[in-house]
Amino acid sequence: MAASTATLLIHSPDQPGLVHSVTGFIFNYQGNVLHLDQHVDRESSTFFMRVEWSLDGFGLPKDIIAAAFKPLADQRRMTWELHFNDVRPRTAIFVTKEGHCLYDLLSRHEAGELPIDIPLIVSNHDTLRGAAERFGLPFHHFPVTAATKLEQEQRMLELLATERIDTVVLARYMQIISPAMIAKFPHRIINIHHSFLPAFAGARPYHQAHERGVKLIGATSHYVTEELDQGPIIQQDVARVSHKDSVQDMVRLGRDLEKIVLSRALWLHANHKVLVCGNRTVVFD
Amino acid sequence: MAASTATLLIHSPDQPGLVHSVTGFIFNYQGNVLHLDQHVDRESSTFFMRVEWSLDGFGLPKDIIAAAFKPLADQRRMTWELHFNDVRPRTAIFVTKEGHCLYDLLSRHEAGELPIDIPLIVSNHDTLRGAAERFGLPFHHFPVTAATKLEQEQRMLELLATERIDTVVLARYMQIISPAMIAKFPHRIINIHHSFLPAFAGARPYHQAHERGVKLIGATSHYVTEELDQGPIIQQDVARVSHKDSVQDMVRLGRDLEKIVLSRALWLHANHKVLVCGNRTVVFD
Amino acid sequence: MAASTATLLIHSPDQPGLVHSVTGFIFNYQGNVLHLDQHVDRESSTFFMRVEWSLDGFGLPKDIIAAAFKPLADQRRMTWELHFNDVRPRTAIFVTKEGHCLYDLLSRHEAGELPIDIPLIVSNHDTLRGAAERFGLPFHHFPVTAATKLEQEQRMLELLATERIDTVVLARYMQIISPAMIAKFPHRIINIHHSFLPAFAGARPYHQAHERGVKLIGATSHYVTEELDQGPIIQQDVARVSHKDSVQDMVRLGRDLEKIVLSRALWLHANHKVLVCGNRTVVFD
Amino acid sequence: MAASTATLLIHSPDQPGLVHSVTGFIFNYQGNVLHLDQHVDRESSTFFMRVEWSLDGFGLPKDIIAAAFKPLADQRRMTWELHFNDVRPRTAIFVTKEGHCLYDLLSRHEAGELPIDIPLIVSNHDTLRGAAERFGLPFHHFPVTAATKLEQEQRMLELLATERIDTVVLARYMQIISPAMIAKFPHRIINIHHSFLPAFAGARPYHQAHERGVKLIGATSHYVTEELDQGPIIQQDVARVSHKDSVQDMVRLGRDLEKIVLSRALWLHANHKVLVCGNRTVVFD
Repeated sequence: MAASTATLLIHSPDQPGLVHSVTGFIFNYQGNVLHLDQHVDRESSTFFMRVEWSLDGFGLPKDIIAAAFKPLADQRRMTWELHFNDVRPRTAIFVTKEGHCLYDLLSRHEAGELPIDIPLIVSNHDTLRGAAERFGLPFHHFPVTAATKLEQEQRMLELLATERIDTVVLARYMQIISPAMIAKFPHRIINIHHSFLPAFAGARPYHQAHERGVKLIGATSHYVTEELDQGPIIQQDVARVSHKDSVQDMVRLGRDLEKIVLSRALWLHANHKVLVCGNRTVVFD
Repeated sequence: MAASTATLLIHSPDQPGLVHSVTGFIFNYQGNVLHLDQHVDRESSTFFMRVEWSLDGFGLPKDIIAAAFKPLADQRRMTWELHFNDVRPRTAIFVTKEGHCLYDLLSRHEAGELPIDIPLIVSNHDTLRGAAERFGLPFHHFPVTAATKLEQEQRMLELLATERIDTVVLARYMQIISPAMIAKFPHRIINIHHSFLPAFAGARPYHQAHERGVKLIGATSHYVTEELDQGPIIQQDVARVSHKDSVQDMVRLGRDLEKIVLSRALWLHANHKVLVCGNRTVVFD
Repeated sequence: MAASTATLLIHSPDQPGLVHSVTGFIFNYQGNVLHLDQHVDRESSTFFMRVEWSLDGFGLPKDIIAAAFKPLADQRRMTWELHFNDVRPRTAIFVTKEGHCLYDLLSRHEAGELPIDIPLIVSNHDTLRGAAERFGLPFHHFPVTAATKLEQEQRMLELLATERIDTVVLARYMQIISPAMIAKFPHRIINIHHSFLPAFAGARPYHQAHERGVKLIGATSHYVTEELDQGPIIQQDVARVSHKDSVQDMVRLGRDLEKIVLSRALWLHANHKVLVCGNRTVVFD
Repeated sequence: MAASTATLLIHSPDQPGLVHSVTGFIFNYQGNVLHLDQHVDRESSTFFMRVEWSLDGFGLPKDIIAAAFKPLADQRRMTWELHFNDVRPRTAIFVTKEGHCLYDLLSRHEAGELPIDIPLIVSNHDTLRGAAERFGLPFHHFPVTAATKLEQEQRMLELLATERIDTVVLARYMQIISPAMIAKFPHRIINIHHSFLPAFAGARPYHQAHERGVKLIGATSHYVTEELDQGPIIQQDVARVSHKDSVQDMVRLGRDLEKIVLSRALWLHANHKVLVCGNRTVVFD
């Protein structure tokens, strides 16, 4: 587990010999492949691949691997990312008033389950300051009104830049993220929406679900894009409900979905198991 | 299992003493309650109840029970239905070309799992005639074009009337049911839609699901009402999919959902465990 | 939600008129039934019932209801319990070193989800003292060795008596509970076992599961009885695993099952939805 | 879907360069990899891989591929199987009296879902002859008593040999398979057991489950080995039950699990997605 590994996420137009050439690159420098998952989408003739290999005895220093891989990638027209398992994404958690996702993430983090660093918590309300402080984490309160929203977002962006934040988790953050922030964190803002998207996008999904009389409620974790609740889906799950469940019961049952789905999405993201292609994800789990 | 029972399905404005008065009616005629499930929706102050009792030694003949119960029901402003477990709904199954739901229903029926009679199969194509005939069931082919649709539906309605059909099951019947037929079978036409409604209503739901990149596909069984795919939901379920699954894989995996969800909805309906209130169902399972 | 209610849990030999007589008792004092769930196990001719009614305007003071109900219960040979929703079980949480269930319970409690009081945390290790203190809860450390076990358990029992503890939750407490403590808390000690019981009882269930090559792992919450992992099951759930999951992955995935299953069992218990009959539970959910 | 492909299933001691060398073999003959799934079990240092490639324009005729691959496989100490997607396993289905799994398999087969041929149905009872004949399949009745069991199994084996049967599916066949037959079909006899193994192995699992009061029932599909219900597990699933469910209800609900789990296991087997290693399976799904 502690062993140092590198991971390549690749997609490209399909062509023969892609796996062979990538594994050749690894093998030529004495790397040993630990996991390789590859798939061709035959409809679009797109090649997807995730490969993780051990850096024990690998013949290239970490800071040169990308440069060494680039010529091959260029020649084969690959879109690619290189990650190292000992570089932990610096992750900011955004919250509003509900604490279940926050507590869940913090206790997982404390247990060593999530390979991330959490330099700070951001909120538009002061409600969860105590929760953050109990875990020894800086809590930044940015009260937002219609009038101050742009200015506050600008201040948030400065804070995120100062803290070299790489990933933003919206753990039931009840504000719409502005295009400026989305542009700074492309496919690096993870939201949890409390419905089985695309059903019940927008406000008050449990009320909508109750009104429609569905027999299952859901939760969806996705990357935030400019269109509200329309970004690439990372993870979803559902739970059974019945006529006995009021909206409040759905809220209670839904909290369990939300925290499991969000933490699972973050785990996948932080372990570099998610590749975005168009408006869909490829999840190598 | 073979013992004779009666079932009352009731909803009414909530008021004290409702359970007591209904169970009093049963007790006064020496009936023994086998299952009673009751619920008050506190938001709308609506009372829902299903009670099933043994007719062994019950002090009223079956054909008088409804008349005997009516005064109490009227006084308490109940909406109610009375059913007997030895009166099997006469059920017509409508199909088009895909046979998985039909086979599933017929093999369940043969195994004695569904308390219904199936006097006939109806189809707008001749494809599944062989399947029906293998199970010894009359197969009626009504080819439908835009020009003949109304006329053919009229003929279907006559057939259903002649055969004293009580319940219609749309087992992947790929035609929109006309308002005239819906009016004849209010909350007695059960459809299976191959998505997790309200997501992906309408045509080609697996294509829609694939396009959106959802991580779960679903199926929904509902009563047919005039608004397409908007009727009261009886049963839903989902299955996990991944980026590896093409639309064709979703179709294959979805068939299992469709047949389980449809047969389960029919089982609940045929056992008088479903009560419709507004556009929602109360399912006493 | 805040409204005051009473709940009766009843089982008895089946006989006609039981529902009617109990609802009669409630109705005679102007109580309005909110939920009634009743079931007859036909094999054993046993009657089970849960009824919850509003105390708004109820004609008996709370402290007299039990005495008033007793004659009817005696006459009908009922085994019964009476609970009030505003009497919150005083619950002690026992832990060892792993904190995921503890954090989960404490954050749910803080969110108002669990109708219990938590006067104290007990542990055989000091590891989770910080977690308890963050939530402002007294933490009692009882180090246990083979030599001191009996003496320490005696001290624990005294503490539980002093604090008037009603329910004990073993939130991954890695010690076998002695018969003396079990006798003091009959069907009031709730354990979480990290397998789908009866599979993989005893030690190291994830190792057993990995060794056997199962495709699903599970968790089981049950009341503690003298036979290890054999008590009445309250709640179970499972999650899918594959050959890619090592024992450590199972441990990680299993934590989510454990916390959801344990908290759900405690929620059911604390809302008086669980009735024990023999070695099985009847769960009115 | 119709395109011709080859699949290699490989396991071996782990060593660097394995993926590279296998994909090199494919690439050198102009094969294009469609799916590659590879995994290293780090505990046991075992390498597992499934690779499927297109035979369109592949530079070796099908009947020479194995011989051409052998030197590489020997040098790397691989255990391997080579399959072609247009060689359909000749599959015998064994049944007793219950038809739900049989109907399910036959209707899937008719729909083109299962890439197998079904030359015959075998049974120790005559009950399902009609079901087989409806689908136009030869039905062979081998009545078995304690006295005739060996002799009848010998006759069955002769029939299976004559019909060049490759895979045997026990679709609720209620007889223990003798070691002689198991030896002839190593990891090619697929059974469905109606419990979540290892819980409730042996006879009457639903009775055992009811007695224990579990909240979920299960089904398990596994390869048959000499130890009863102990073979490598291919697929498992569960469904929720409650105190309201009698043994008969569990039987009814369990049938759905059984047919889904068995057909899924057969689909995985027939698509060469299952690799057996020791007493566990690696399922590349």
